[in-house]
Amino acid sequence: MDVSAILYSLVGYIIQLSETMKGKLYGVSVGPGSPDLMTLRSKRILEGCDVIGYPVKRSGERSTALSITESVIRLEGRDVREFVFSMDPDDSVRREHEGVAITELISILEKGMDVALIALGDVGVYSTYMYVDRAIRDAGFETEIVPGVNSFSHGASLAGVPLMLGDEGFCVIPMAKGDESRLEMALDSFENIVVMKAFKSIRRIAELMDAHGIPRECAFVMSNVGMDDEYIGLMDTDRDYGYFTTVLIKKESMR
Amino acid sequence: MDVSAILYSLVGYIIQLSETMKGKLYGVSVGPGSPDLMTLRSKRILEGCDVIGYPVKRSGERSTALSITESVIRLEGRDVREFVFSMDPDDSVRREHEGVAITELISILEKGMDVALIALGDVGVYSTYMYVDRAIRDAGFETEIVPGVNSFSHGASLAGVPLMLGDEGFCVIPMAKGDESRLEMALDSFENIVVMKAFKSIRRIAELMDAHGIPRECAFVMSNVGMDDEYIGLMDTDRDYGYFTTVLIKKESMR
Repeated sequence: MDVSAILYSLVGYIIQLSETMKGKLYGVSVGPGSPDLMTLRSKRILEGCDVIGYPVKRSGERSTALSITESVIRLEGRDVREFVFSMDPDDSVRREHEGVAITELISILEKGMDVALIALGDVGVYSTYMYVDRAIRDAGFETEIVPGVNSFSHGASLAGVPLMLGDEGFCVIPMAKGDESRLEMALDSFENIVVMKAFKSIRRIAELMDAHGIPRECAFVMSNVGMDDEYIGLMDTDRDYGYFTTVLIKKESMR
Repeated sequence: MDVSAILYSLVGYIIQLSETMKGKLYGVSVGPGSPDLMTLRSKRILEGCDVIGYPVKRSGERSTALSITESVIRLEGRDVREFVFSMDPDDSVRREHEGVAITELISILEKGMDVALIALGDVGVYSTYMYVDRAIRDAGFETEIVPGVNSFSHGASLAGVPLMLGDEGFCVIPMAKGDESRLEMALDSFENIVVMKAFKSIRRIAELMDAHGIPRECAFVMSNVGMDDEYIGLMDTDRDYGYFTTVLIKKESMR
């Protein structure tokens, strides 16, 4: 074996070692609100990782995902860090914050530390984490998505109804931008409809249900579940609702 | 206080006591396949209940939900019982089995024993349990639905993609009866589509995607996840798929 061959395999070994020593990013679902709806896997990863990160829209903001986490595992002595993901309407402001967060994550991972970013509900359902996951993977690090119980499965269980049965269809529509045509199509074509981000649109949803001949008692509202102003019950258009408001409309199956 | 008043409150007390002494039925989601995707709540209820029931289509059948359960908790010395819920096309055969199961459940609950009926994935998603829950509640017993991680959240996490992002819609369509018109509508109107019970329809789904101008690389197949013939990957129309086959079509967001 000549010297160049020895050097070559040594370099290969060092590259392999540095790959192994890189940290891993986990996107950890903590469930929809009740701490015991966290999975065994999420608990284990949160107990074993080096850094627990929680996303906020503004620095210093309270995090429901963090409250859930500290109800399940001890955070004393742990490295817990805030990551700001702005919801500013200005795209460049959002990108700037995302850039800062990703740079910090990469610097942690480069040191060989594992990071768990926590997400409320299921991380696959409308979570910013997925953009971060892609960016960190593109930067050459390993990532893992840890699924969880989503908010609409939780809401349906609290209302005592199935999400869907038999040959029924099911759909989820976000109302943030007030996209009514899609909701109208869904009211005609699906037996089970979840309307998310509905807190400003309850009266409008009720009107559209009237127009499509769907009785109002087909709609459950699940609002700020697990918080002080929680509401779970039939749709009441005279009430005000919190930010996390979801409507479940069940046209045909048991309700 | 006269004798009739004493008797009256005594009778009230006895009624209250007998209510309290009745058992409770739990519909317990055990998650989509990996034992550690069970929630802390499901684990606690399964550890504490008097009877664990598992549903089968035919007596003696293997139960995936039971395999998951015994990976998480010790079943030695526990009262574990099979409940047959037939999938016979004949309605009267199905009703007869359901009647037998519900009669047995009621006799257990009458003795003051708590029963946990286990369900694969999330009990709110296409689970027979919901019919049982309604019948047992109608018979005057307390029930509780314990939500879990569903199979499509799990599948998306394995594929490394979100179920939905931003303002995207999402829908679930069962293909059992080959209802193509609903799938065609969904292909036009939703960014994210889950087709369940798709094992016989993969080629037809691919043809419909072609017809609606959706590239085939937008479709992931998740088949028999956690079993020996598991397949998770891009849609391959030349392959045969197992019974538990789900297709996730992502038209726009990251995939």
